[in-house]
Amino acid sequence: MLDIAIVGAGPAGLSAGINAKIRNKNIKVFGNPFNTSYAYKAERIDNYLGMYGISGQDLIKSFVEHANKMELEIHQGRVLEIYDMSGTYTLNVDNEFFETKTVILANGVTMDKSLEGEAKFLGKGVSYCATCDGPLYRGKTVALIGDSPIAEEDVNYLSEVCEKVYYIPTYKDINKVNDQVEILKDKPTAIVGDEIVESLKLKDKDLDVSGVFIIKESVPTTRLLQGLEIENNTIKVNRFMETNLKGVYAAGDCTGKPFQVSKSVGEGTTAGLQAVKYLDSNK
Amino acid sequence: MLDIAIVGAGPAGLSAGINAKIRNKNIKVFGNPFNTSYAYKAERIDNYLGMYGISGQDLIKSFVEHANKMELEIHQGRVLEIYDMSGTYTLNVDNEFFETKTVILANGVTMDKSLEGEAKFLGKGVSYCATCDGPLYRGKTVALIGDSPIAEEDVNYLSEVCEKVYYIPTYKDINKVNDQVEILKDKPTAIVGDEIVESLKLKDKDLDVSGVFIIKESVPTTRLLQGLEIENNTIKVNRFMETNLKGVYAAGDCTGKPFQVSKSVGEGTTAGLQAVKYLDSNK
Repeated sequence: MLDIAIVGAGPAGLSAGINAKIRNKNIKVFGNPFNTSYAYKAERIDNYLGMYGISGQDLIKSFVEHANKMELEIHQGRVLEIYDMSGTYTLNVDNEFFETKTVILANGVTMDKSLEGEAKFLGKGVSYCATCDGPLYRGKTVALIGDSPIAEEDVNYLSEVCEKVYYIPTYKDINKVNDQVEILKDKPTAIVGDEIVESLKLKDKDLDVSGVFIIKESVPTTRLLQGLEIENNTIKVNRFMETNLKGVYAAGDCTGKPFQVSKSVGEGTTAGLQAVKYLDSNK
Repeated sequence: MLDIAIVGAGPAGLSAGINAKIRNKNIKVFGNPFNTSYAYKAERIDNYLGMYGISGQDLIKSFVEHANKMELEIHQGRVLEIYDMSGTYTLNVDNEFFETKTVILANGVTMDKSLEGEAKFLGKGVSYCATCDGPLYRGKTVALIGDSPIAEEDVNYLSEVCEKVYYIPTYKDINKVNDQVEILKDKPTAIVGDEIVESLKLKDKDLDVSGVFIIKESVPTTRLLQGLEIENNTIKVNRFMETNLKGVYAAGDCTGKPFQVSKSVGEGTTAGLQAVKYLDSNK
């Protein structure tokens, strides 16, 4: 059982992690590769106090180096869902399960733009996890919509089990996709069917498919944890970064503007220390 | 007329300053010498993300260097009072006056422990400003209570105009006090008199004086700005670091726990950007 599970390995998540680590808690940080963070792509950052004129890449590297020096455990993977187990929480991380006493959500800005039919067919042909549900589509035709190169691993996996795989990337530079995958530069508009998924409508054509996989860099917060209070599309927190759920904290871009590294780092510190306080008073 | 007056040159104040500076605002930061900040005295700071294991001194130096590179204007001095001029504010900084459109309070933890009789005799023998009120005590006997070496300049000034000056330092290492000043290592307990101050009671003896000067490193927030809402001894702010007064923001230790550098820096960023937003929408 973890003391603290941190969702997100950006500035907020790492800051929460190092602060809780100093207090000797058993922590795991779950996140995407570091080079996928927004800050990493910034050419120059002038407003993180103490590091004038640093590149986003160097700033993130210094953060990761700090975390490594403190032996913060970082687990690369996508948190697909968090279950409230009344008193504790269970995380589904790429279909591996982790139990924890507290959760710090530091999952950044996660836009929740659903596709028409997406909610209706969830579990009836729509899936957010290729490695979990891929085997159900053995020998069938599926489509995968991906918003970042992270989805390529999923599409390549599907190409090994499915008869035919269409890949609709919504980002620019494709990294590495198997030859048998058909890449379509098109815009998904709706998922249609009767009881189960029958086709994916794109702007220019329709695809007859049995399954539609939607792989986003992060699962939208609204879908991550049932019962979490959201306000103006961000997680509602108080000045101690407490959410409405006991033992659940949030920090960084997911709590709202301004979207600045120092704001995220500061909130991460507060969230980490508040989680420690909660753990110590509930021993 | 300044766009933004920042009270305090610690991590929160400097962070607010650099963020507003990037947006081309006319800013002045008012504060004590850098080596008086709490963080400066820390032997080692492990939780400011990106700078593992740095000394407090080096961390503060890197903050000041950052501010200097961005040509942030820092004015050394104590902000004695802030006047609400309905729409703008006027700062009394060691009896020099500055007008400003907005104020960011980043004045750290300022304990407001009043001495018995202090409030009663304010203006009737009790003063918070030696250079302002010193001349009123020409040829008389006064006492000065100081909580840091900052007060020594005041006590030396008084020794030039007053007949006799007692100095009661409440800190350890005295830096430089004129020979004619009588230093007493004692604890002040009360200011007494009838209509005006007649004596200062110490734990071990009483002093017959006409004036008592109380010089603190920072003026307690509760005394700084009339009408500012305080909650649990800290300035009440919302998630955008707005106080109850229009155009007045707060950041850092003065808004409450945790007292951590990264929390202060993050809040400074938010306060700075929020002040800019306010200025831009009230042009």
